[in-house]
Amino acid sequence: MGQRPGDVSSPARQAGPGEGIGADELALATRNHGLPLEALRYDVTPPGLHYVLTHYDIPYVPNPGAWRLTVDGRVRAPLDLSLADLHSFPQVTTRVTVECAGNGRALLSPRPVSQPWLVEAVGTADWTGVPLGLLLAEAGADPAAADVVFTGADHGVERGVEQDYQRALPLAVAVGDDPAVLVATAMNGAPLPPQHGRPLRLIVPGWYGMAHVKWLRTVTVSDVPFTGFQQAVAYRIRRTADEEGEPVTRIAPRALLVPPGFPDFMSRTRVVRPGPVRLFGRAWSGQAPVSSVEISTDGGASWEPAVLAPVVAGRRWAWRAWRHDWHAAPGEYAMGARAHDGVGGAQPLEQRWNRGGFANNAVRFVRVVCVDDGPSP
Amino acid sequence: MGQRPGDVSSPARQAGPGEGIGADELALATRNHGLPLEALRYDVTPPGLHYVLTHYDIPYVPNPGAWRLTVDGRVRAPLDLSLADLHSFPQVTTRVTVECAGNGRALLSPRPVSQPWLVEAVGTADWTGVPLGLLLAEAGADPAAADVVFTGADHGVERGVEQDYQRALPLAVAVGDDPAVLVATAMNGAPLPPQHGRPLRLIVPGWYGMAHVKWLRTVTVSDVPFTGFQQAVAYRIRRTADEEGEPVTRIAPRALLVPPGFPDFMSRTRVVRPGPVRLFGRAWSGQAPVSSVEISTDGGASWEPAVLAPVVAGRRWAWRAWRHDWHAAPGEYAMGARAHDGVGGAQPLEQRWNRGGFANNAVRFVRVVCVDDGPSP
Repeated sequence: MGQRPGDVSSPARQAGPGEGIGADELALATRNHGLPLEALRYDVTPPGLHYVLTHYDIPYVPNPGAWRLTVDGRVRAPLDLSLADLHSFPQVTTRVTVECAGNGRALLSPRPVSQPWLVEAVGTADWTGVPLGLLLAEAGADPAAADVVFTGADHGVERGVEQDYQRALPLAVAVGDDPAVLVATAMNGAPLPPQHGRPLRLIVPGWYGMAHVKWLRTVTVSDVPFTGFQQAVAYRIRRTADEEGEPVTRIAPRALLVPPGFPDFMSRTRVVRPGPVRLFGRAWSGQAPVSSVEISTDGGASWEPAVLAPVVAGRRWAWRAWRHDWHAAPGEYAMGARAHDGVGGAQPLEQRWNRGGFANNAVRFVRVVCVDDGPSP
Repeated sequence: MGQRPGDVSSPARQAGPGEGIGADELALATRNHGLPLEALRYDVTPPGLHYVLTHYDIPYVPNPGAWRLTVDGRVRAPLDLSLADLHSFPQVTTRVTVECAGNGRALLSPRPVSQPWLVEAVGTADWTGVPLGLLLAEAGADPAAADVVFTGADHGVERGVEQDYQRALPLAVAVGDDPAVLVATAMNGAPLPPQHGRPLRLIVPGWYGMAHVKWLRTVTVSDVPFTGFQQAVAYRIRRTADEEGEPVTRIAPRALLVPPGFPDFMSRTRVVRPGPVRLFGRAWSGQAPVSSVEISTDGGASWEPAVLAPVVAGRRWAWRAWRHDWHAAPGEYAMGARAHDGVGGAQPLEQRWNRGGFANNAVRFVRVVCVDDGPSP
C-alpha cells in the first residue's frame, strides 16, 4: 500500500495550554525570518533584513533569461512573455510595505500551529515592474471575468493538497490603478533575490503577503471565482473549522518601534540609561493612510501622541515614520506603539483570535528597564 | 533601589524533559535565520540566504566613510584607519564557509536554552579584504604578544555582563597565512550588508562564526591571554558548569543534502516520486579537507559513498559539493549525509552533549516519503 502525497500532511491544530513551540514550528522559524526590529530604522529595508516566508522550497532559477510568463484564460490574445518582453513595457517603481498575514500568530492564545511569527514579519522595498493592468489590457482580458489567478513555481503539499502556490485577485483589483498591482522584476534597484521571487513576483500594495505571488509563471483570467487551497481553505478568518470565513485581504494598521537602548541577548529585554530617549519607529495600514500613532510606556494604561513624519507624495503604500521624545527615569516600562488609520481602524489591545492566526495586529509591549548606574547605597 | 544592566539577564539553563521552545528562544529564532537547505545548491550563498546570528542589535552605520579601525596595544606604531586607508592595502578574496558554533543546538537532549538552531546555520561567501597579518606588520605587533583582541560595535548584556562583542585569536593565528585572517569589506563583490558587519568584519577561515567579529572597530595586541566573556565564559565546551572547558575554535566536519523532492508545508517531510533521484549537497570541515561523504537512506543502518566534486585550487576553506544517484521506490526513508575529513574527523551518529550546545555535528536525518501515485487497488 503506497502513500499518496497528501498522506504526509497532518491537520491544522491549535497548541495546547502552555505547549511550547514544537519541532515543526521551529523548522519553519529557522528557515523563514523576520525583520530584526532595529532595522525599522531604514526607510527601505535591505533585502536580507526584509521578512521572508516561503510555503515550500525557494525555486532554483539559474537562467532567468529562459523564464516565461504566460497570460491566458478569458483573454482575446494570450501572452507568452520573456523578461526582455516585460522590460519593453512601461516600468513603474513603487515603495511598498509588505507584511505577512500570519504576523503576530505566535502571540495568540491558543496558538495556531504554523509559522510562529511574533511581530517582525514586515519589510519595505522599492519594487520595479510592469503594471499588471497593462499586461491584462494587452491580452484583452474579458471585462466580465471574475478573478485573475496567479500561479508561482513553488510546489509542495499543504494540509493534504499537492499544489503549486496559487492565489487570485478580483479582476477590478488586478486592473486597478490605485493601487496598481505590479509584476515586479527588481527590488531596491536590483534583480529580485531568490527568496523574494527571482525573477518575477506580484506586488499588491496594501495587501498582506500571501497575495504577492512569487516566482510568477502564469496569470489566468477566469470567469468563475477561484477556489484553490490558498484562497478558499487557507487565509480565511474563521473562529470555527466549519465556517466559510472571511478572506484575508488588506493589511490591518500596525505601529512598531525601534526598541530603545540595547538588548539582553537571551531575554531581549531592553536596557536604557536615565535621561532623554528619542523613541521612533514606523506605522502602516493597507486600509487607509495612517492618521495617528500613540505611545504607551505603561503597558497601555496611558497613551501619548507621537509626531508623524510629513506625508510624502507617492508613498501611500509605504510605512510612515513617527517619533516621540521620552525622558527615561530608573524603573521598568512596558513600551508599545499603536496606529490608527483614516477609516477608523486602530490596533486592539486584546487579541482578536482566529484559527489561522491571521491579521493579529494587537499592540505588543516591549520590556524596557531604565537602570540606575549610580553608586550602591 | 535601581537596577543595574546585569540584572536583566537570567542564568544559562537546559530545557526540561519535553519542554518546547520558549518565548525567549523564539524571539531569537524569528530575528536570526539559517540557510534554507535548498540554497545549498548555490556555490556562493546569496547574502539574504546566508545564515545570520547577531548577539545584540545590528549596529546602524549610515556613513561608512566615517568608520575608523584602530590597531593598538603591544604595537610599535598604532594605526587609525578609514575604509579608504584599508583599500590602499593589497586586497585578497577568499571563498569561505562559515558555520555558527551553536548549529545543531536545538537537537541536543537536554536542549541548551539559547538560539535554537537545527542544522541550517551555515553559508558560503566570497569575502574580500585586507589580510590581518599586513595590518599587524604595518603596526609592528610585538612578536612576543599572546592574543589579538577584536572589538565590534555591537553592544548588549549577556548573562549579567554588559559588553561590546569581543573575541581574541592567538597571535600566531592572527598573523598566519594559511588560513589568512581577513579584515573584510565586501561579500560576494558588494559592500557588506548591515547584518554581515557593514562596513568591516573579521573572517577567520575554518573557524566557527563566533571568531568572525562583525562591525569591527578595534584590533588590540595583548601580552596576556584574553579572558573576556565571549572567550572565557561563552563558547567553551563544558559538561559541567564549574569546569574550565575547552575553547570552541575550528569547524567540525559536516555534510548536508539538498532535501530531495518537495516539502509538506508544516512537517517539512519530503515527497519524491518513484524513479531515479540525484541526491546532492555540500560538505565541509575546518579541521582538514573533506576526504569522503557517505549517504544513508535508512537512518544510518547502512551507508554508501557519495561522489565528491574535484578539489579546486584556492577553495580549501569553502564547502565541497558531492552527489549520489538514488533510485526511489515507494516507501519511507530517513536520509542523511556524513562527512569525514583528512585528520580522521567524522560526524557522529550520537550526540556529544555539552552545556552550551556547541559543535553538535551529529548526522541529521530527513524524512523522505516516496509516494505511489498509481491507481487505487
